[in-house]
Amino acid sequence: MRISVRIMQLPVASSPVRDLLALTSRPEVISFAGGLPAPELFDLDGLRAAYDLALREPSVLQYAPTEGNPDLRALVSARLTGLGLPTSDVLITTGSQQALALVATAMLGPGAVVAVEEPTYLAALQCFRMTGARIVPVASDADGLVPSSLRSVVAAEKPDLLYLVPTFANPTGRTLSAARRVEIAEIAAAHDLWIVEDDPYSELRYRGPSVPPLASLSDRTIYLGSFSKIGAPGMRLGLLRAPADLLRTLTIVKQAADLHTSTVDQAAAANYLAHNDLDAHVARLRHEYGARRDAMIAALPATVPSGTTWSDPDGGMFVWLRLPGAVDSAVLLQEALRHDVAFVPGAAFFATTPDHATFRMSFTTNTVADIGEGMARLAKVLL
Amino acid sequence: MRISVRIMQLPVASSPVRDLLALTSRPEVISFAGGLPAPELFDLDGLRAAYDLALREPSVLQYAPTEGNPDLRALVSARLTGLGLPTSDVLITTGSQQALALVATAMLGPGAVVAVEEPTYLAALQCFRMTGARIVPVASDADGLVPSSLRSVVAAEKPDLLYLVPTFANPTGRTLSAARRVEIAEIAAAHDLWIVEDDPYSELRYRGPSVPPLASLSDRTIYLGSFSKIGAPGMRLGLLRAPADLLRTLTIVKQAADLHTSTVDQAAAANYLAHNDLDAHVARLRHEYGARRDAMIAALPATVPSGTTWSDPDGGMFVWLRLPGAVDSAVLLQEALRHDVAFVPGAAFFATTPDHATFRMSFTTNTVADIGEGMARLAKVLL
Repeated sequence: MRISVRIMQLPVASSPVRDLLALTSRPEVISFAGGLPAPELFDLDGLRAAYDLALREPSVLQYAPTEGNPDLRALVSARLTGLGLPTSDVLITTGSQQALALVATAMLGPGAVVAVEEPTYLAALQCFRMTGARIVPVASDADGLVPSSLRSVVAAEKPDLLYLVPTFANPTGRTLSAARRVEIAEIAAAHDLWIVEDDPYSELRYRGPSVPPLASLSDRTIYLGSFSKIGAPGMRLGLLRAPADLLRTLTIVKQAADLHTSTVDQAAAANYLAHNDLDAHVARLRHEYGARRDAMIAALPATVPSGTTWSDPDGGMFVWLRLPGAVDSAVLLQEALRHDVAFVPGAAFFATTPDHATFRMSFTTNTVADIGEGMARLAKVLL
Repeated sequence: MRISVRIMQLPVASSPVRDLLALTSRPEVISFAGGLPAPELFDLDGLRAAYDLALREPSVLQYAPTEGNPDLRALVSARLTGLGLPTSDVLITTGSQQALALVATAMLGPGAVVAVEEPTYLAALQCFRMTGARIVPVASDADGLVPSSLRSVVAAEKPDLLYLVPTFANPTGRTLSAARRVEIAEIAAAHDLWIVEDDPYSELRYRGPSVPPLASLSDRTIYLGSFSKIGAPGMRLGLLRAPADLLRTLTIVKQAADLHTSTVDQAAAANYLAHNDLDAHVARLRHEYGARRDAMIAALPATVPSGTTWSDPDGGMFVWLRLPGAVDSAVLLQEALRHDVAFVPGAAFFATTPDHATFRMSFTTNTVADIGEGMARLAKVLL
């Protein structure tokens, strides 16, 4: 049966992380693979009350404006403004993955060029590949994206947009320094480059002072936020902040994508923000996740071979590691699974040439005790 | 500020219907414009209980498989099978609009050709236009799509797929006859044509025997269903049924689009289907909407000028009308709004050359009494 020429040409590979999550769902596996929030820290009672309140009015079950629930947009805009990003309006999206897909649909296509920090969030790579755009990597180091590498890429490739996770990046956990943010904003202004600042993690800071969002430094920035890491990913609520003209265009693209995001989930989130202390909830997450981060970092020297390097994240969910020698972390994963422990091999996070010695570990989903046990299992594989 | 060459080229017009809904939201307007279910008929209590039950487990707030909630997929597959469409699995989508967008992303693009029944659902036209595909119209009459017109289009244009709403179509309310369904399935088989059967309305039948879905006659059919008309559109739950290979491809495309549909809304829908009698609820909708249909059809002869023609739908939400003479229904709408009544001008539902004398009226959102009053207002405009 012919499907279609175009389907056959689509670079449609399923996400290695999502495929891996299926493998690691055996209850005996301690998985550092997923980028999942800890379910025991969800505010289940608070959210159940917020849904119950929402479902007192039949209008919550009706079609709704594509832009999103006006109360939620106002509450989210006020929250962003309070966090140092003055915001007059946002588009509510079906998770921030949809925000990324809308940007890709509106701004990319065959012939377009997108520059990405390397390594980077693999679902962003999937999304960009699906448009037929060419992806070009920009180097990063411990302080995030390297401005001189961006200058070279801009000169050689003239990208339409730059995608990065500047704060507590996925997969590296690294944060772009304040000085580099200013420099990147200047490069964007000088070269008509759009920046896509993907920022799901910045509220999960465990130490150090906060760094200004790129969007506060450059009006050529499309800022993507998420309720998934500070609220609950199951609700699929993201947000997109962009200059007004572009926000209007992206709203029309969203109309074709799913008409609008769930009226119920949006109303529940608006109720939750109006009647609960999200800052206190986030403080609790910071406290718990910070302890988990510390436990993983403390265990690393006794877990990995000498010569291994790793990132030392100030926040977020991830540690990024590189083993010495010519090893393939995908092969090591098979051995790790036999020891009931899992991580994500790093290759999939590279736009072009993968570094097979790298891998990503998440410290948020497991308790401190389980992290200790998981690291002991991993030591048997790696040492 | 340069946005991007590609953005400027996107045929990004907002939906005239959604823009119109904003105009008609004044409470004094009796609107026949929207395609909205009646909010007073939502099973608000049943759905609130279903959400409350779902929110007893933290897993409902977590990330979830792209394919959808396994219980919901099984319940929906069993329901479709019971309705005459044997179904082993479905992909749960964020409303059936997303299902349409996934099909467009996977199967269309610049150079592709999509054949559509004319007139047709305008958000489908928007979605197809955004891919850069060429849209070619196929004629329809009181029995739906005309097979001889499809044969000509297939011979001349070699479309990649055919899109239609075969049962109680939007905007016409017409139903494709059983004999024509067989003929269209034969044409699809003979010419490697994919059929997209968009079927949100078929359970809303007010008279006459049911007609087999095209998907039961041709395995070259992608079937789109929805919870929006029999459940609640605010939950944004749709479904896609397709051959296994294609379903797998579309699942990967969905992964890039929004990772997965709201875990909460899906779990609530699964609970609702498991613990409530949806058939009884649909029977109540049929009873109420059937009376509203009858009221609108009965009032029409005294509302429109002699020479006007209209469809006589057996189900669904819409009546499609054509006025005599060289009139423009968009101009008449301005006059109607001054009389606090609204409809949708027909032009936007045409892929190519619009017929400005046409318009669409929905009979589901208003009570029989309000339909009487609205038709009296409309008579002052049209007579």
